[in-house]
Formats: sequence, structure tokens, C-alpha cells
Amino acid sequence: MAQDDGYRARIRSSFERQGLMRTIGASLEHISPGVVEIAMRPNRAISQQHGFTHAGAVSAIADSAAGYAALSLMPHGTGVLTTEFKINFVAPATGDRIVARGRVVKAGRTLTVAQTEVFAESGGEEKLIALLVATIMTVAGRAEVND
Amino acid sequence: MAQDDGYRARIRSSFERQGLMRTIGASLEHISPGVVEIAMRPNRAISQQHGFTHAGAVSAIADSAAGYAALSLMPHGTGVLTTEFKINFVAPATGDRIVARGRVVKAGRTLTVAQTEVFAESGGEEKLIALLVATIMTVAGRAEVND
Amino acid sequence: MAQDDGYRARIRSSFERQGLMRTIGASLEHISPGVVEIAMRPNRAISQQHGFTHAGAVSAIADSAAGYAALSLMPHGTGVLTTEFKINFVAPATGDRIVARGRVVKAGRTLTVAQTEVFAESGGEEKLIALLVATIMTVAGRAEVND
Amino acid sequence: MAQDDGYRARIRSSFERQGLMRTIGASLEHISPGVVEIAMRPNRAISQQHGFTHAGAVSAIADSAAGYAALSLMPHGTGVLTTEFKINFVAPATGDRIVARGRVVKAGRTLTVAQTEVFAESGGEEKLIALLVATIMTVAGRAEVND
Repeated sequence: MAQDDGYRARIRSSFERQGLMRTIGASLEHISPGVVEIAMRPNRAISQQHGFTHAGAVSAIADSAAGYAALSLMPHGTGVLTTEFKINFVAPATGDRIVARGRVVKAGRTLTVAQTEVFAESGGEEKLIALLVATIMTVAGRAEVND
Repeated sequence: MAQDDGYRARIRSSFERQGLMRTIGASLEHISPGVVEIAMRPNRAISQQHGFTHAGAVSAIADSAAGYAALSLMPHGTGVLTTEFKINFVAPATGDRIVARGRVVKAGRTLTVAQTEVFAESGGEEKLIALLVATIMTVAGRAEVND
Repeated sequence: MAQDDGYRARIRSSFERQGLMRTIGASLEHISPGVVEIAMRPNRAISQQHGFTHAGAVSAIADSAAGYAALSLMPHGTGVLTTEFKINFVAPATGDRIVARGRVVKAGRTLTVAQTEVFAESGGEEKLIALLVATIMTVAGRAEVND
Repeated sequence: MAQDDGYRARIRSSFERQGLMRTIGASLEHISPGVVEIAMRPNRAISQQHGFTHAGAVSAIADSAAGYAALSLMPHGTGVLTTEFKINFVAPATGDRIVARGRVVKAGRTLTVAQTEVFAESGGEEKLIALLVATIMTVAGRAEVND
């Protein structure tokens, strides 16, 4: 694994610059090598027409969790770019809190494949609501922070 | 085609109830049978860490455009639910305006496949930035409006 | 879980009627509730241009493993149909044997989501080469066998 | 566009070395810049359990059509590798002939996105049966032929 000790700081700094994460009320909950967790609370501002959380908001935190999971294993001075993802929605996005847990499936020099499971928490119980698989590209000349 | 004359009103009403669309500043630009267009303007509130528009915001309008394109062909009293989508990002989401054009590829009774092309407009020119393919489920008991 | 005791026999019978599985030399290696394993041996007849196993052959066994994993949890008298899948190829398909392990992620009445990990075995070691996620539809009126 | 005059010969030569294409009876029907067509005839050897053509066989020709469409725009001395694809099946794969038409959506230096529409021909009529979107990687050191 190529991550240096500063990967947590770099991920936190990058996350803070993602305007969308602030806009939808998402927070960075966990970072470890190859694993990143992002959460948000369902509310009117991120809803779809039936009152559930919008698939786009779920996708946004699931994509960011996958991207940062990939970044956690990359060398200093590199950045990440999502080239594509696919997401299946298996249950309505409701509950008290929505948690996206991204983990690296296969880290590569150019491309990394990561997968995010998204859970809805309700009354202390967790339920799988979505599954995302993403291909993330290492971007050599675009560091996530001025490092 | 099963759409009734009221499909435009039903789509507009449903769109207005999508809190996320308002939150990210998206607007419904065009509705015709099997085709729906949604746009937004890049800004800090929907950005990712490099200053481009976040993949999650692009996905959100692309998904909604696909879903409403599907809804435009459905009978009165039914609703739509995205079961899954896949999106490829082929160029950075920058420019003055981002436009998602959804169209139905195959309308089915239970499942409809729709595709959205997302373009970035800049100085009067359009550039393809993303391609989404979605499977949308007809939800019989959950109308988009009280109709 | 809705599977009856006869699900193994029904899956074996269905597999035997898949002409493509015989053509590419695939065999059914394991069946348990929600989990199915299919394997094949790399050879010239299923190769791509660089001598590796063709992505199409890898996809075929991965798709069948996902579909039968779904079928293993379905009631007697129903069949399965893949409505869509996505597959990421993370390493070349080489080695002595290729094994696709499908498992159900979420079983639903109409739609089931299943995931297949594909491994290449070489000298007693396993390496992940592909990851498939599929949406499988329950087909009520089309049993897998005359049951 | 970077293709040289020899791209047709290179694609034909590469296709002939794909053992799987011969095994499933596929033929290369058309090559032009950014567009490639591959066809096959439904038969017992490529069937699934209900008698239709197996999703894996449909995926195989759709993937190859996308890959060769990408290769048609690449410089001499490079090869292609599918990194991922997603395919939606929108109608049963039946009929007299199945034709996969791949075309490049966005050609890039490292990654190319291509899309394949698959049609079933029956009694002189064509019907869309599947839609594939693939990400294809340029492989610099692995030419498709000894060129």
C-alpha cells in the first residue's frame, strides 16, 4: 500500500472543499486504509418526490466514500477522479441516518475499483439500501490538497 | 404510448416536490413524450474538491431526467422509482450551465430503460460530459401527485 | 426465504439446458441458499485476442452464477431473467481455472440484486479478476423446469 | 482522430484471434471509424435455459463491438482492454440474427467510452434487445497484431 501517514489529513481537507457535501449535510465519519465512511440525515432538502432521500443524494455520498477509500491508498501528491459508477437501490432511503461505507476492491496504478454499501439506520438498526461500484482514476498532476 | 394529456402537469408537480432539485438549483427545462430535460448552473454549492461540479450533482439531475422521461409515458395514477443506474463521466463538469437530456430507450410495463446525456454549455457550445443509463420501475400504488 | 427443498435439482436442470454453459465448458460447482458457484478452464475456445479468457465468457458464468443464486431463494414454479448487469474487470482472466461465486445481496419479490466475484486460480492461489452486480427479475409464469 | 489506414486489417486480424467469437459463431460485419458491427445467429449452442440466446453471448458480441469501435480510432501499435461494462436487456434475444452495433461515445487518450446497441432481426424487422456501455482502456505496449 502506498498511502503515507498524511492520508487522513488530505482526505479531510479534500472533503471540506466538496461544496456539495456541505450543501447536502454530509459528514466524514471514518477513514482507514482503503475504507471511508460518509453519513447524512434524511431531510426535506435532499428528498425526492415521495419523501424519501433522493437517489442523487445517496449516490453523491456513496461516490465520495468510494473515491476517498481509493485516495486513502494512493501516494502523496495524487488526486482521484470518478470515471464511472453504477448503483443499485434495494430499499427506500429513509430512517434517522444514512451511512455510506466505501472500500477498495482492487487498487491499481491507473484505475482503482471501489464499492460502497449504503445503509439506512433506524431505531438502532441498519438496513442495506444501496450498492455502488465505481472506477476511480488516479490523477497524477492534481493533488487533493497543496501538499 | 400510455401517457395522458396531464403528464406535463404531473411531472412539474412531482419535480417541485423533489427537495434535492431545489437545493442544488436544478430546473425543469423541457417535457415531451419520452423526453425530459433538467438543467443547473455550476457553483460552489454543488462542487467537488477540484472546483468542478460534483459527480453526485450531475448524477442527481441525470437520474431525475431519466425518471421523468419514463414517467411521461406512463398511465395516470402511477409513479416511478429508479432501481439502478450507471453513469460514465467523460469530461469535467464545468461551463456556464449543465443540461441533462433524458429519453426513454425502452418502455415496459414493469421496467423502463432510459438514457440521459449530460452536456456542459460554455460560450454557446455544448460538450458531452456524462452518459447515464437507468432502469426505472413503474410503481402502481404510488402516484406522483394526488391524481 | 422462500426456497423449497427442490431448488438444487431445479438449478441443476436449468443449468443443463443452458447451451452456452456447455459450449464454453462451464460447470456448476456449488449450490446453497443464496449462493451459486460456476467454474470453467481457460482455453483457446473462450479466448480474446491477447490469449486471456474473453470478457464475454467471464461475464457469461458470472451472470449465470448471479441468476442461479437468485433462483435458489425463489419459490417453486418461478424462473429468473437478468434485466441488467455491470461488470468490472480488475485483472487478466488467466490461470488454471476461473471460478464465479454469485450471492444474493437483496432478494425481492419482483427484483433481486445479486453480486458475483470472479477469481482466477493459479498454482493453488486465488486472485480476484472481476466483480459483477446484476438485477434479476422473478418470472412468475416461466418455471425453470416443468415443475 | 488517430486511426491510420490499416485499422480495418488490424481489427479483422484481432477478431480472428478471439477464440470465443469463433466458438459462438460471431462474425465481423462492418468496420468504419468509431463504428463496428458484429453478428451471430441464435442456436442451441449459445442458448440459456428458456431457449433464448444467453445474456453472456449477447454481452460477448456487444463487448467486442464496443472494443473494436474504440480500437478503430486508436493509433497504430496500441491495443484495447475492456475495464468494465454495463448491459441492459430490454427484450428476449430471439430471431434469425442478432446484430451488435458498437460506436464510440467519447474517445480519450487513456479511456474511451463506447456504446453498443444490440438488435434482433426477425422477418426483415429489427428490434432493440440490449444496450451496453463500456469503458475501454488503451494499452500502449500490447498491439492487437504484430504491427
